[in-house]
Amino acid sequence: MRIGELSRRTGVPVPTIKYYVREGLLPPGELSSPNQAHYDEVHERRLRLIRVLLEVGGLKVAAIAEVLGAIDDPGRPLHKVLGAAADRLGGQGVADDDAETATARATVEQLIARRGWRTHESNPAAEDLSRALAAMGRVGHGASTELLDGYADAAEIVARADLGYVSRRVAVEDLVESVVVGTVLGEVVFNAIRRLAHVDASARLYGAGDEWEGSGADGPGEGSGG
Amino acid sequence: MRIGELSRRTGVPVPTIKYYVREGLLPPGELSSPNQAHYDEVHERRLRLIRVLLEVGGLKVAAIAEVLGAIDDPGRPLHKVLGAAADRLGGQGVADDDAETATARATVEQLIARRGWRTHESNPAAEDLSRALAAMGRVGHGASTELLDGYADAAEIVARADLGYVSRRVAVEDLVESVVVGTVLGEVVFNAIRRLAHVDASARLYGAGDEWEGSGADGPGEGSGG
Repeated sequence: MRIGELSRRTGVPVPTIKYYVREGLLPPGELSSPNQAHYDEVHERRLRLIRVLLEVGGLKVAAIAEVLGAIDDPGRPLHKVLGAAADRLGGQGVADDDAETATARATVEQLIARRGWRTHESNPAAEDLSRALAAMGRVGHGASTELLDGYADAAEIVARADLGYVSRRVAVEDLVESVVVGTVLGEVVFNAIRRLAHVDASARLYGAGDEWEGSGADGPGEGSGG
Repeated sequence: MRIGELSRRTGVPVPTIKYYVREGLLPPGELSSPNQAHYDEVHERRLRLIRVLLEVGGLKVAAIAEVLGAIDDPGRPLHKVLGAAADRLGGQGVADDDAETATARATVEQLIARRGWRTHESNPAAEDLSRALAAMGRVGHGASTELLDGYADAAEIVARADLGYVSRRVAVEDLVESVVVGTVLGEVVFNAIRRLAHVDASARLYGAGDEWEGSGADGPGEGSGG
């Protein structure tokens, strides 16, 4: 198909498509004449993936380039693809080297040991976690062990669900793309579900069908002074 | 303390502090003379909160203004504070009105009904979820019922952990701030923990201590064609 048809099918304006080609996100069309390029379903699918990572996943163009590069490199181990897909979450700030950071790193190490998780400290997620925990501590809302263990219980369930989802796919290409979509969009999906569950849990805890209403005025009033 | 001391204590440059005051994120200091303002621990704490929401939570300045406005308005029901805190996640894109969106909305309604969650369809998280699910469907990686139920199981555990964390706090002011920090940073924390759990789950599934390595080359090869 010609670029105009690709634009109509995907809803992406022609200049934007050309920009993606220039930035290396989308392979160029095959030239059928010096002034005309031909695009196919592979382009259409890739274009949709770009838009989803951009609009729903919240990735920047540079991050998308990295993620797509990982998808297109069959020799790249899957965990590196995952790492690229997960880059959106952090890494922009350098961790401070204060007492809170040291405490947070120790907390993360203990958590990993307590769960018996097979992972390394070099996993960037461990550093992201330390940074977020240190930040919570710095504003006086440090995470408790109960909170982290609750999150870890939930994360194991999510990870099993994610892997079950991914492993139903056969083709390697599809598998890798699925991991990327699952990592980036699965996060958006899970966070939305978490917020829905919040409303339900607070309705049960604070009574009434009024969502969080009233709890701000009354307070739970059962403070155990933790 | 003077603004220079506030800057030293928090590591935030003086012009940035003045910018936050102009934007209404930080209350102005009390004038001790026409040219000199006095800041106290409330300013210091608020300034740290701003930096954390910005750097770790990834919120934009406008979103932070909304969140802080919610914290400072004691009459505002807690679920509205939560809504403001959760704004970072979506709402920028208008949902398409295509078949995928209709299917996704029905999926979300069914999920809420199946879990018996007390929430409304008007909850913005429901719309965020529909949008993300529709996007996954559009790129050929639709979420399965198993995946959503796995996420929902996990989300209930997370919600209970979050509320347990919040309800240990007594002062209302502290409670509201805790909800905001928990919603914004809890998400960052959970996502990092999820990625750690991923690595462990894939190591167990695909063998070896090599994280995801190898699975990209071999493929799980057990496709049940879902």
